[in-house]
Amino acid sequence: MTSSTKTVKSDIEIAQEAVLAPIGKIAGGLGLDEEDWEPYGRYKAKVSADTLKKLNGKKDGNVILVTSINPTPAGEGKSTVTVGLGQAMNRIGRKTVIALREPSLGPTMGLKGGAAGGGYSQVVPMEDINLHFTGDFHAITSAHNALAAFLDNHIYQGNELNIDPRRIVWKRVLDLNDRALRHVIIGLGGRTNGVPREDGFDITVASEIMAILCLSVNLDDLKKRLSKMLVAYTYDNEPVFVRDLKVEGALTLLLKEAIHPNLVQTLENTPAFVHGGPFANIAHGCNSVLATKIGAKLGEYLVTEAGFGADLGAEKFLDITTRAGHIKPGAVVIVATIRALKMHGGMTKEELRNEDMDALARGMENLACHIETIQAFGLPYVIAINHFIFDTDREVAFVKDWCAKNGHPVALANVWEDGGKGGEQLARLVVETIESQENHFKPLYELDDSVEDKLYAVITKVYGGKGLELSPKARRQLVSIKKNGWDKFPVCIAKTQYSLSDNPKLIGRPKDFVIHVRELKVSVGAGFIVALTGSVLTMPGLPKHPAALNMDVGTDGKVAGLF
Amino acid sequence: MTSSTKTVKSDIEIAQEAVLAPIGKIAGGLGLDEEDWEPYGRYKAKVSADTLKKLNGKKDGNVILVTSINPTPAGEGKSTVTVGLGQAMNRIGRKTVIALREPSLGPTMGLKGGAAGGGYSQVVPMEDINLHFTGDFHAITSAHNALAAFLDNHIYQGNELNIDPRRIVWKRVLDLNDRALRHVIIGLGGRTNGVPREDGFDITVASEIMAILCLSVNLDDLKKRLSKMLVAYTYDNEPVFVRDLKVEGALTLLLKEAIHPNLVQTLENTPAFVHGGPFANIAHGCNSVLATKIGAKLGEYLVTEAGFGADLGAEKFLDITTRAGHIKPGAVVIVATIRALKMHGGMTKEELRNEDMDALARGMENLACHIETIQAFGLPYVIAINHFIFDTDREVAFVKDWCAKNGHPVALANVWEDGGKGGEQLARLVVETIESQENHFKPLYELDDSVEDKLYAVITKVYGGKGLELSPKARRQLVSIKKNGWDKFPVCIAKTQYSLSDNPKLIGRPKDFVIHVRELKVSVGAGFIVALTGSVLTMPGLPKHPAALNMDVGTDGKVAGLF
Repeated sequence: MTSSTKTVKSDIEIAQEAVLAPIGKIAGGLGLDEEDWEPYGRYKAKVSADTLKKLNGKKDGNVILVTSINPTPAGEGKSTVTVGLGQAMNRIGRKTVIALREPSLGPTMGLKGGAAGGGYSQVVPMEDINLHFTGDFHAITSAHNALAAFLDNHIYQGNELNIDPRRIVWKRVLDLNDRALRHVIIGLGGRTNGVPREDGFDITVASEIMAILCLSVNLDDLKKRLSKMLVAYTYDNEPVFVRDLKVEGALTLLLKEAIHPNLVQTLENTPAFVHGGPFANIAHGCNSVLATKIGAKLGEYLVTEAGFGADLGAEKFLDITTRAGHIKPGAVVIVATIRALKMHGGMTKEELRNEDMDALARGMENLACHIETIQAFGLPYVIAINHFIFDTDREVAFVKDWCAKNGHPVALANVWEDGGKGGEQLARLVVETIESQENHFKPLYELDDSVEDKLYAVITKVYGGKGLELSPKARRQLVSIKKNGWDKFPVCIAKTQYSLSDNPKLIGRPKDFVIHVRELKVSVGAGFIVALTGSVLTMPGLPKHPAALNMDVGTDGKVAGLF
Repeated sequence: MTSSTKTVKSDIEIAQEAVLAPIGKIAGGLGLDEEDWEPYGRYKAKVSADTLKKLNGKKDGNVILVTSINPTPAGEGKSTVTVGLGQAMNRIGRKTVIALREPSLGPTMGLKGGAAGGGYSQVVPMEDINLHFTGDFHAITSAHNALAAFLDNHIYQGNELNIDPRRIVWKRVLDLNDRALRHVIIGLGGRTNGVPREDGFDITVASEIMAILCLSVNLDDLKKRLSKMLVAYTYDNEPVFVRDLKVEGALTLLLKEAIHPNLVQTLENTPAFVHGGPFANIAHGCNSVLATKIGAKLGEYLVTEAGFGADLGAEKFLDITTRAGHIKPGAVVIVATIRALKMHGGMTKEELRNEDMDALARGMENLACHIETIQAFGLPYVIAINHFIFDTDREVAFVKDWCAKNGHPVALANVWEDGGKGGEQLARLVVETIESQENHFKPLYELDDSVEDKLYAVITKVYGGKGLELSPKARRQLVSIKKNGWDKFPVCIAKTQYSLSDNPKLIGRPKDFVIHVRELKVSVGAGFIVALTGSVLTMPGLPKHPAALNMDVGTDGKVAGLF
């Protein structure tokens, strides 16, 4: 069958046809002992967090970070490239492990319908990964809401800590898209039903506990971070932490399984860790440090991805995650698609099948900015053009020429259609780049810099903006941050993913813009200062026709509607 | 070492010292094939719901139901006796499987600290069973709240179904004790944040989905029941069901793993299913029909328990569960402790160490009522005295004499202290009773009886009351129930567990009381009519010093504070 007559199968059809190896074989192939992992079904396992200690003496493999241009409705396929690249690396004889984030049920039931790669570059069993998987997110939801219940109970039972119910900063969470829970009033119904107050629900991936789970290097670190979480202020304006409520032990207990990285495989039996999934705006948007570190010990190479574009996920990986995990990345792959570049050049989604060289040329500016970001971090990089069937030869040639002219290593990736085979060229280029280019990796700012300077560094060197404006509220919060000694944390900017600026409509490469910081929130346990810009939602809503309407499971247990 | 100098170990110490068999060995011992089960860690498995179909031709083992007198703060140890009896049955050469409910995280974090039996009669790994286990409750929480989100989203997106936001009967749930969420207002914050309305959270075990999961015999049955759930009424007073929202497929998908019974083992390696955990007041309070039926196919005997006293859990098992699962029970074990009987006779918890023959004699009346209940169902039964160290010989002799005088088979059970060995006498008596007594089992009422007659039958024949009083609201609801054709369902009375009446203070055997039905709610998917009496809470609160305060997990992963 030639490729032109090939029937296009859906992701779930491809996934359901895959021949999976028993997970013990995957674990064994990584050199793990029986005691290092526990099965969760036949094709999933949890690898003990203690494995990291055990592998201490072993040399680290090269960590390859996959990032992308600013996302557009056209889709960039960053996860697909990550999986495809991991498969390809193994095909060219480089022992490579993949590390991805776990999908969130909210978007899966809402718009996305799943997030485990695509085509012939998927992690499997995709049905499990897209649903409850090994229960990590549920454990986080439980721990997060248990803390909220302990807090409200403390107030109800006499409020020894003198907590001001109007200044509770710990909300509740659910792993769902549910706009009706964004703003609620709780504790109604009279004296025996608690103390009335304003509250709200975020989606679980926005929980500080999710960020902490992904930054902790062991159970002790996890407990210490949990104990430091800020939950409220007293009537005397003093901060109240988890340790004041004495529940860090119970919270750690609820997370004692979730901390262990999950091991699965790709369609080509490449080992893949899928662990943790913090938001890439309100949090740092990378899979767990433990998965990345263990994977890097077990493989010659470790391919991981960071959420959204290089302005969000990659910046946070390089400024926050690498510091928490003492990780030195080897190279960055910047994913772009012709379609998305054309949208950055001004085309609408409906027009994308048409060739438009001008739009494409304009769109390159977005890619250019992200390349400069990675250069600013001193890292070797490769551009990956994730090939779509409607891309014309002229368009592809244009992008390749542009890269050549500007000295950027570039490769076409056909991983959706051809799996690892379609990523071999990219894999070879990545290996060559790591082996030949110098690596001057350095985070963008020093932790000792002032909070304003840290923000300024990201805004000017990554976003290409000209400065920042702090709201009066953010200014007041900055005073409190300094007073409490939290100003040595790195910054985590919550910004729209669609634009380099804080205005989602400014696509391409906007210039001369200012970032408006309306609020500063400290995640003391995770260890970063969240700067909220624009209107970042921490609880998504469902669309008019949620993906859930197409989901089903047959009498035989066969799943439909995930993709 | 004699028993008088024995050091008393905590439940968790005993559990942590246990030598567990790999779960594959337990599954293999039951005659299950590799394809029938999936491992969840080394000591837990999910046994496929399809196993039931596969075992269709096999003869059913005897189902033994363990119930008790009305619970008191003294503790009755019904789960402990259930586990101990299962262990003992195997010791006397009868292949026996146990089926229990899964503990709920809410009470575990609140007052209970765990619920997996006690002493040398526990199911293990108790830490896992008491925490997230295999994620069943989290799946139910997800499905329940996803439905709530779909419902609110439907209204927000135009409300095609004309749903009256004031008449939504589907609340939200969390597997936590959290009184502040009992009564809430959601949808605040302006136009983009949903439609404001009153709402509330129940604990997950009170969810109709929990009841449905426990009554379904396969995935199709589950989907059918989910599609029938009542969620709201329209402005025209028409009922709105899940099928009208078209999300039964998505909900079934979220529950596709949860439907498979969980297999674990006892301290003595007796196979035990631990699956589902519906409330025994708002729901029917028994583990899943699938676990009971599969267990009965795999064993010569299946020992299961029903929640609270025989007035609640056992009555519902015999009138609701047996009908849904076409189960014919073989015998009932009624558990009593000397301590609890003395409390029913009027002693306070502090006085219980003192011998008090008068209080004991008065307390026997409570036991007598539950015996009459089981007689009313036409079932053979055995009284089990669950022995506590402070019981005096005179007290034990008194209870035995009372049973002998009244013709009730009785045995002392030392299962907490001695495990299966301490239950051998009870096990022999149970086998003998099943083999020698006639079994005239019949539910208490016919489904064709009127709702009032069904309620009357339970109130007079089980509770020993003289009648019922329906509130004006319940009367109005009854009209609607009849109009919609739901009056053929069995009734599920939500009543305090502490008294035979609806007043928790009337312990012992109250007489001449009337049961006040304040509300009738229909669980159309589960298939029963819930009659709410007194003030039954569907979302518990935390005590001043929650059990969570003592919980911890060490650097080595060792758990403390569960018991």
